[in-house]
Amino acid sequence: MTQQWIEETLYDNWGQRFRVVKELARVKSDFQDIVVFESDSHGRVLLLDGVVQITERDEFVYQEMLTHVPLFTHAEPRRVLIIGAGDGGVLRRVLEHPGVEKAVMVEIDGSVIELSKKYLPGIAGDAWNNPRAEVIVGDGIDYVKRAADGSFDVIIVDSTDPIGVGEVLFTDEFYENCARILSAEGLIVNQCGVPFMQADELHETSARRAQFFPHVSAYVAAVPTYVGGFMTLGIASKGKNPAQQNAEEVRARAVQAGIAGKTDYWTPEIHVGAFNLPPYIARHLPGADKKVK
Amino acid sequence: MTQQWIEETLYDNWGQRFRVVKELARVKSDFQDIVVFESDSHGRVLLLDGVVQITERDEFVYQEMLTHVPLFTHAEPRRVLIIGAGDGGVLRRVLEHPGVEKAVMVEIDGSVIELSKKYLPGIAGDAWNNPRAEVIVGDGIDYVKRAADGSFDVIIVDSTDPIGVGEVLFTDEFYENCARILSAEGLIVNQCGVPFMQADELHETSARRAQFFPHVSAYVAAVPTYVGGFMTLGIASKGKNPAQQNAEEVRARAVQAGIAGKTDYWTPEIHVGAFNLPPYIARHLPGADKKVK
Repeated sequence: MTQQWIEETLYDNWGQRFRVVKELARVKSDFQDIVVFESDSHGRVLLLDGVVQITERDEFVYQEMLTHVPLFTHAEPRRVLIIGAGDGGVLRRVLEHPGVEKAVMVEIDGSVIELSKKYLPGIAGDAWNNPRAEVIVGDGIDYVKRAADGSFDVIIVDSTDPIGVGEVLFTDEFYENCARILSAEGLIVNQCGVPFMQADELHETSARRAQFFPHVSAYVAAVPTYVGGFMTLGIASKGKNPAQQNAEEVRARAVQAGIAGKTDYWTPEIHVGAFNLPPYIARHLPGADKKVK
Repeated sequence: MTQQWIEETLYDNWGQRFRVVKELARVKSDFQDIVVFESDSHGRVLLLDGVVQITERDEFVYQEMLTHVPLFTHAEPRRVLIIGAGDGGVLRRVLEHPGVEKAVMVEIDGSVIELSKKYLPGIAGDAWNNPRAEVIVGDGIDYVKRAADGSFDVIIVDSTDPIGVGEVLFTDEFYENCARILSAEGLIVNQCGVPFMQADELHETSARRAQFFPHVSAYVAAVPTYVGGFMTLGIASKGKNPAQQNAEEVRARAVQAGIAGKTDYWTPEIHVGAFNLPPYIARHLPGADKKVK
């Protein structure tokens, strides 16, 4: 067995390492360093600028929670905008919802899409060819600036951390445009990092979103290769409060959509329960003083 | 800054590594290799046979969930047996419950206790000197064999994984004795590993416990340094079903005990919600076919 390891470089004093079976690609794109390798433990792994984005074995956790929670929180999501998510896994799961008429995916780095199609074909499946999908290689910031008012019901932001290429997806201007292009009951979800290690990320992006959305909240997911305990997914809504949902209603929706019983992490109970934040996380949200128990 | 790293050796193909500020102790006891070091990221860290047991920064997650869940699930826990947990963190939190009259802790390795007292004094606080605590350096297997029928209300097993010194804490004989020495409504909790990496551990120990307890279940906790997503804590009960609880009742108990609002991970909602297992975990429990959604 090879003795080569790849070490994640997200934090300079702690992190995970993978035993490498084979390196499949190492590309310097116009935007970032991209590595795809076959690991001994997690199947194939995609790294961007040294940070784990997805592994074949555990991608279901992140993708199910990033997709099914917003799409079963919004009452009738028909038009969905995905920013980032070049591996195609979010697109695939958005398209599992039969009520979705149009899914627009805007990924800035075409190399991520090409490498994912070549080396991680199982993650997107045949979503790339779905007639309801529109895949744009382009700048998500620019896209939301030019999109029409009220043109989407749900926006899913699958960004890297707010350093490097992902940084512009965490600005006031971006969130203001997102609020504008969402319909009246629209909502946006974005990854907010692992608060045990990156508490500022949750705090700052939640405060920014609170300027433009009446309901700003977050929910958690335990993603095996996003090390450091729960990661948080920020959610902001123009309509109802996402933190107050009923598992039976969510279940009825999932049954109707044909998604109930087909997931490996998401369930109606986990959907609703994920909004119950541990106090060490809850205290980083706006207005947290009242929420911390 | 030092460039020295300590790598966890739990899995041979994936794991975490810590940047070391200073190694504080490296001892070969009669039972295991013990290392305590000051990390750059997580405060002080205790390793047994190369596996992370506890860090100062995230110990609250594991200890709160291992203690408060069983003690607020049992209706009136007065006599608590702790096996292992030589750092004293479980003992401290058991003694936070005013209704506990007696907490017996049986740790096989006196060196773990001594090193924890010296290098991790904040984890146990003054629990070692509490008049309700009895700390025994001895064999937990032997202790449960000789203990009287019905002599404890709750047993908490804070073992290492079922390899090395911890292996005997996962046998039929051990669980049979635990069932015998528990009172009529008694329950036992034990760590069942991280199922994303160690699914057999949850499956096998749950099946063993199901021979001696009418209710066998599990709940999850996202412990930052037990890498691999959720860890599971197995729970087996002679009385009521632990998986069916009410958050308002748990909250009332926590308020009465003076524990509500003083935790960093545990809350009544998380207590109840932690029994909602993701399907990828639920399918490893006995009778899982019915539970997997």
